[in-house]
Order: sequence, then structure tokens, then C-alpha cells
Amino acid sequence: MTLYKAYAEDLAEMIERGALKAGQRMPSVREASRHRGLSVVTVLKAYHWLEARGLIVARERSGYYVGSRPQAYPPQPAASRSATVSTAVKKGDLIFEVLDAVQKRVVVPLGSAFPSPLLFPLQSLYRSLNRSVRHLDPWRTVTDLAPGNWELRRQISLRYHIDGMEIAPDELVITDGAMEGLNLCLQAVTRPGDAVVIESPTFYVALQALERLGLRAIEVATHPGEGIDLAELEAVLRQQRPAACWLMPNFQNPTGALMPDARKEQLVSLLERYRVPMIEDDVYGELYYASTRPKPAKAFDRSGNVLHCSSFSKCLAPGYRIGWTAPGRHAAAVRRLKLGTTLSAAIPSQLALANYLEGAGYDRHLRRLRDALFVERDAMINAIREFFPRGTRVTRPEGGYFLWVELPRGTDSLELHRRALRQGISIAPGAIFSARDRYAHCLRLNYGHPQDRRVLRALRTLGQLALDCGP
Amino acid sequence: MTLYKAYAEDLAEMIERGALKAGQRMPSVREASRHRGLSVVTVLKAYHWLEARGLIVARERSGYYVGSRPQAYPPQPAASRSATVSTAVKKGDLIFEVLDAVQKRVVVPLGSAFPSPLLFPLQSLYRSLNRSVRHLDPWRTVTDLAPGNWELRRQISLRYHIDGMEIAPDELVITDGAMEGLNLCLQAVTRPGDAVVIESPTFYVALQALERLGLRAIEVATHPGEGIDLAELEAVLRQQRPAACWLMPNFQNPTGALMPDARKEQLVSLLERYRVPMIEDDVYGELYYASTRPKPAKAFDRSGNVLHCSSFSKCLAPGYRIGWTAPGRHAAAVRRLKLGTTLSAAIPSQLALANYLEGAGYDRHLRRLRDALFVERDAMINAIREFFPRGTRVTRPEGGYFLWVELPRGTDSLELHRRALRQGISIAPGAIFSARDRYAHCLRLNYGHPQDRRVLRALRTLGQLALDCGP
Repeated sequence: MTLYKAYAEDLAEMIERGALKAGQRMPSVREASRHRGLSVVTVLKAYHWLEARGLIVARERSGYYVGSRPQAYPPQPAASRSATVSTAVKKGDLIFEVLDAVQKRVVVPLGSAFPSPLLFPLQSLYRSLNRSVRHLDPWRTVTDLAPGNWELRRQISLRYHIDGMEIAPDELVITDGAMEGLNLCLQAVTRPGDAVVIESPTFYVALQALERLGLRAIEVATHPGEGIDLAELEAVLRQQRPAACWLMPNFQNPTGALMPDARKEQLVSLLERYRVPMIEDDVYGELYYASTRPKPAKAFDRSGNVLHCSSFSKCLAPGYRIGWTAPGRHAAAVRRLKLGTTLSAAIPSQLALANYLEGAGYDRHLRRLRDALFVERDAMINAIREFFPRGTRVTRPEGGYFLWVELPRGTDSLELHRRALRQGISIAPGAIFSARDRYAHCLRLNYGHPQDRRVLRALRTLGQLALDCGP
Repeated sequence: MTLYKAYAEDLAEMIERGALKAGQRMPSVREASRHRGLSVVTVLKAYHWLEARGLIVARERSGYYVGSRPQAYPPQPAASRSATVSTAVKKGDLIFEVLDAVQKRVVVPLGSAFPSPLLFPLQSLYRSLNRSVRHLDPWRTVTDLAPGNWELRRQISLRYHIDGMEIAPDELVITDGAMEGLNLCLQAVTRPGDAVVIESPTFYVALQALERLGLRAIEVATHPGEGIDLAELEAVLRQQRPAACWLMPNFQNPTGALMPDARKEQLVSLLERYRVPMIEDDVYGELYYASTRPKPAKAFDRSGNVLHCSSFSKCLAPGYRIGWTAPGRHAAAVRRLKLGTTLSAAIPSQLALANYLEGAGYDRHLRRLRDALFVERDAMINAIREFFPRGTRVTRPEGGYFLWVELPRGTDSLELHRRALRQGISIAPGAIFSARDRYAHCLRLNYGHPQDRRVLRALRTLGQLALDCGP
């Protein structure tokens, strides 16, 4: 855990057990810094975090005070339920209506799938791009086509190695973002008409992919804290013989669920036993708030049954469109699909990232990014508690940048989406995260954008609109 | 026509009608330059072209002499025949075996689909990349996702406008190379089991796409000079009701066939009448040797029935992976497919190309590239006449960089491919250009690589191996 977080949790604990009393003035930043032997920046970060959590409040020109009552986190949503039958997917129109709205720059982008581009080291990436393309060997435009630049694959492999996982550069295929990797992997292991297991709720890109390929969806119960329910999954594997599972064990989109590593191990061996390939979307794996990276399911794969996909788009280089997949025993099939559909990821992007990863900046950047997201998480949870209708539940993810919000039953979040849009605010309504007509009262909010006054005002507006759209 | 070509054709005509006699010494470059008021470079280029065509020969330290006999071009292959039924496509394994071999750098790349990377202005592109990414507005990583950077789309639209064709920037979707555009367009207008009209022979990427999407192929007779046979096409449209046509009217791959503009107009109205969408691959449209750009079929499209695809990969920026499609009335569907499969082309690549196109360098580069390819064409035809078995036929394309070679019937070009590979030479054997077992005695050769001694030696070796693999 970083220093400021340890200090902040210390203080939070003192507030909760009453050692620091409601209304009491906090030590000034300077005092605290001297007393605890911490830097002023560290103390400030801790205070910001406590403020975001609503435990202390800032008063102008007077410093910080303990809040009037210790604020507990709001309750989290319960686990979802499994569907008993598979569903043909027909959500394309709705998903595109929502995405079209969300892509517009004018809106407060709470419905966006991307964190703020201001959080990324675009200047460092530019320098890497410049360095690596200036003396470009022309033949790279041929040799670095699929499966991709070897040095980049080596650097990616190295990062897995440091996290205790062996993925050979030769297994990796560089893709145009994780989205392409996921699509190619799904194509490699299914045929039209097959059924595919997904989490419930699930990332809408999975629904789009299933619809496009003529596949049926089986939604399996998922716990916002622990991920997919293994007992229910086993029942589905036994009874419905799906062709594949498309899962996101680390910081699932939209719920942020983190499956404990021990359960991932069970998951991998369960799927292996039933010989059902697992497509793993791990794009948020690096965005953890705890002290170590959660393992991907791929780490427990001994037989090549896991088709692991990730990218740099959400944690380092948005717009460079560089992802990768380690498709296990399906690697040859995926490599072929890549060659036959888009041929190759852009060479300048590949070279820039290979060059950037050789430097030492990535881990520093990631630490900063995680810290920023962690603080924003609690700020948004706090605003939801303050502004949203009584009875609202919200997840408390340990990574990523999404909150899954469950409004009181009977609230129409699609209507909320449309009304909010008219006020220049986007959200991701629950309906786009299910092949069935579930989650009509839920929404996903993105806290990956610094929560300035505009965002806070938008959250207040959303809270009011949610009441209007309520039961 | 460029100056040197006009001069060269003048001289060729004089040789052919005997005004310049076999064995006669040509005027020295300096003399010719003075006499005709041409620059030394222009005269040199004309002489090189005549040399490539085998009309004159260089003698060391003594200048150029008229060849011993005026060399006619070898005969061209005849038109192919239509298949009477559609075919399930199962060529994937063979195509990948061949492509795997061709991608290796060690071989003489006569089987490659790409021209030499040394023919492209990679340094100018680098400067454009540098200029446009140095001060990158971070929000571009969001706003320039599909359908793509607006300025780039405007520049592409402008080029069409200059060539007398109106394609609005709003119709354009930027893709990861033309290959992605073609694939998305095919997906947008077909369902598994549908039949699709292709030329015979056809580019193997079309076969891969059909196979992947579970589509059937209808191969229609194609003339190496004039493109697809319209009467035969109409018979197929009437009897077999295909879901789409995938055609390449400009410098078709592999035959180099150029459909005259008047026939393109007939083609477009024929397909319109039968309401069969046309997917047009125009990646070689800019690589013409005549004085003006041949029109794409899209130029004659009034109803949005033509899904036009092209890219910069073959004429400007290999490895940047930037293509585009103008999908007519299918634009919304294609935009969705793009968003749902790869999301966006790489932003740095898009910005670099938008910046490059704003400058004046593109047309200058294209002129140079066309001149280079034209000279190489005749050099390779000449080598084929010299080294290949008697009875060999070869196309005489007016653009692009492929020759389609028909060896004497009974020659096994797949065996030739395998034997050549063992000697470090790649070719593209005829079998990968047909869904049926056609073209077993044909091959495609790439003349987009400067024909140095290594290439000439490879052509001589190929000629010998072709005899060994002959009937």
C-alpha cells in the first residue's frame, strides 16, 4: 500500500472509532507532516482521500474538520441471477443509440468507456514514437505485420514474467486494441448458433460480438464482489454445453467485480474439465488499488484453454490501438484470423510502445493513475450517497473506473439516460449490459474523469432525474 | 503521359518500323539531350525503359545499341471461364501455407503482395507524424475514434473531388487498411450461406473472407485486359441471385486487368438493376501508368449501391494501416461494424496521414512510384520471355505491380512454389486465387521490387524450375 493510503486509512479508522470526533479540527497539513514525518504532499493526498470519502470537510481559509457523522459506504448491489435458457442477442440498435450519444465531446462523459485522456503520459509516448520512427527500418513495415513487432511482444511477455506468469512472446498476437483480440478469439472457438457464457451484467461489446456472429448468450449469476458464481456456472456447463465463456475476472465491466485468485484457479480447472475455452478480458488488470496486481485467470492455465486478451488503451496509450492476445492452444487459429481480417496493428504505434516499455516510466505512470482513480472512486460514491434516491446501491470496486449503480426498483434508467442527455450528461443505462431485459433500474458511471464542479453538478442533476424516473 | 515516356515510345516506334536498325548505336545520352531539348535525366529514364523492354542493350563503356531484333511482348493469357455453380470455399490452409513462406524476409519476394518498402517516402511521413503528434490534443484519442479523424476524411474526399468524383467526408469510415474495409463491407451485406460473385482468378483475401463468413463463391469469367465479363455476370445475377459482388475493376489482383470506364458504368447499372451490392477494392487505382487515373466504379454510382474500399498501404504508407471505405447506403451498418470490432484506426497514423496530405508531396511521390513500377514491369516481362518455358503467357498490366503468368498447361505451379522456396524464392502459385481447383499452371509475380541481379537470378532459376515442373 502506498504511504498516503496507509496514513489515510489510519485516520479513517480513528474517525470511525471516535478518536477524532465529529466537528473537530484536523491538524493542519504542516503540523501533520511534522508530527508523522510525512511529506506535505503525502498528507495532502491523504486528506483529499478522506474528503472524497466524506469523512472530513474542508472549510475555506480554516482547514479540515471531521465530518458531522462518520459516513459508511452505501450498500452494494446483491449478486445477479442466472438465466435458465440461452438468448438470441438483439441489442445492437439500443447499444449504438447509447454509444453514439456517449462519443460526443460536449457531454459530461459519465457514460464513457474511457478514462480522461488527460490521465495518460501522451508526451512521453510522443517522445517514444519520435525516437522509434525517426530511423525506421523500411523493412519493419513488412516484418512487423501480424503477429507483430517482436520487441513489443518481448516487453509484454517480460511484464507478465515480473508478475509471476509465463507467456512466451511467440504465443502473443498484437491486435488493434483488446476489442479486436476478443472478437478474433470468439470467432476462433465458435460457430454461428453456438451458445456462449457471459457474466450478468456483461460488457456490451460482448453482446455486440455475439449478435454479429449469430451466437446465443447464457447469462450466469455474478457477484459484484466476487465475480461469476462457480456453482451456477458448473450447472450451465453440464446442461447447456456452451462453446465458450467470455469473462472478465479482474474489475469486471460494468460491476468492477474482482474474482479472488483462488476462485480463478477453480474457474480455470472447471472449464478445463468441461473442455470449454475461456476468453479472458483483462484490460483493467493493471488498474488495481491494492498493493499487488491481481492474477489473470491465464496464470492458472496449464493446458492452453484460456484465450487471454488485454491492451494498453485503458492504462497507457489511448488511441494507439495496441492490444494483444495470448490465445493458448488456439494461437494458430487466432493468428490466421488476424492476418485475414486486418493484417496488422499500426507499425508506428507498435514501435512507440515497444520503445516506451523499455524505459522505466510505465510503473511510475501506473502508480499515479491508480492513485488518481482510487480517490475519484470515493468522491463519486460520496456524491451518489448525497444526491441519489434513498435505497440506491452502489459497488465499491477495488480497481478500474466504473461504478455499478442500482437505483430503487421501478426506476427507468433508459429514460434517465435520455433525459440526462438533454442536459448534456451521458450515462450507460443498465439495459445495454444484458441480452435479456434486465437491469432496467441500473446504470454504469465512469469515475475516470477528474470530478470537478461540472461533474459534481452533473451528479446532482442525475440524482434529481433519477427521482423523476423513479417508481 | 510523362515526357520520358512519350520520348521512349517515340523511339520504340522507330525501332519497330526499322528507322533505327538492329545493332545500330543509339545517340549518346548527351547528344540526345541536346538534340531533343530534353534533360539528361529524361533521356536516361527513356533509355532505361527501352532497355527494360529489351529494345536496346547497354554495352559497357560504349553506350546503348538497338537490340538484335525488335522484341514483341509475349502473348497474354486468354479470358477465364465462369463456373456454373457456386462453391463452398476451403482454401484457408493452402493460402496460409503460402503466405507464411512469403512473409519471411530471407526470400526473394516475388510472391509478396507488397511493393518494396524502399519505394515509399517514409522520412516525409515520419516528419508528418512528428509534427502532428508532438502537440497532440489529448481529446483526439476520443474524438478521432470511428469513423475517424475528420481532417483525414476531408483530405481523402478532396482527392476524389480533384479526380471528378464526389464522396462526402461523412460517408467515409477510416479502417485498418483496405483489408478491414473489405471485410466489414462483406459482413454488412451478407449472411452465412449466401453466394458472392468474385472474379476468376481472384485475390485470395476475398477467398479467406468468404470462407471465414461461411459464404459461397461464384467465379465469373474475367478478361486479363478488360475485367469481368458483363454478359456472364448478368447470367449469374439472373440465375443464382448472389448477395454481393466483390470486384476490383482497376488493376485487378492478380491479373492486373483494367476495366474500361465505359464498362464500369455498365457494371454499376447492371448491379443496381439486380439490386446486388458491389464491394469495390480500389487499392491500386493510383498506380496507373497512363496519363490519368482510371475512375473507380464508385464514380458511376448514383444509388449508394457501391461499397468502395481503398487504402494508403500500397501507394504511400505501408505499415501505417490506414484505409477507408465509402459504403454508400450501407454506411451506417459498416460504421457500426467498425465500432464493434476494432473501434478505430490508430490515431497517430491517422494524424500523420492527414498532415502529409495537406502538403504537396503526395502527387510527386506517386509520379515517381508509377514511373518506377512501369519500368520494372517491362524488365520482368523481358526476363520472363528470356527465361521461362516456350508457350508461357504473361499479362501486360497498365498499373499496379503484378504479372499473371500462365505456364504451359500441365505445369504444377504449387510444386514450383515449393521448389522455389527451397532456393530462397517466393512466388504466389495460381491455386490460391480460386475457390475451385483452377490455375494450377499459373502464378502471380510481384515486380514492385527493384530488379537487381538477385531478382534476375531468381527469375532465371524460376524459369528452369518451371521446366522441371512442366508437363
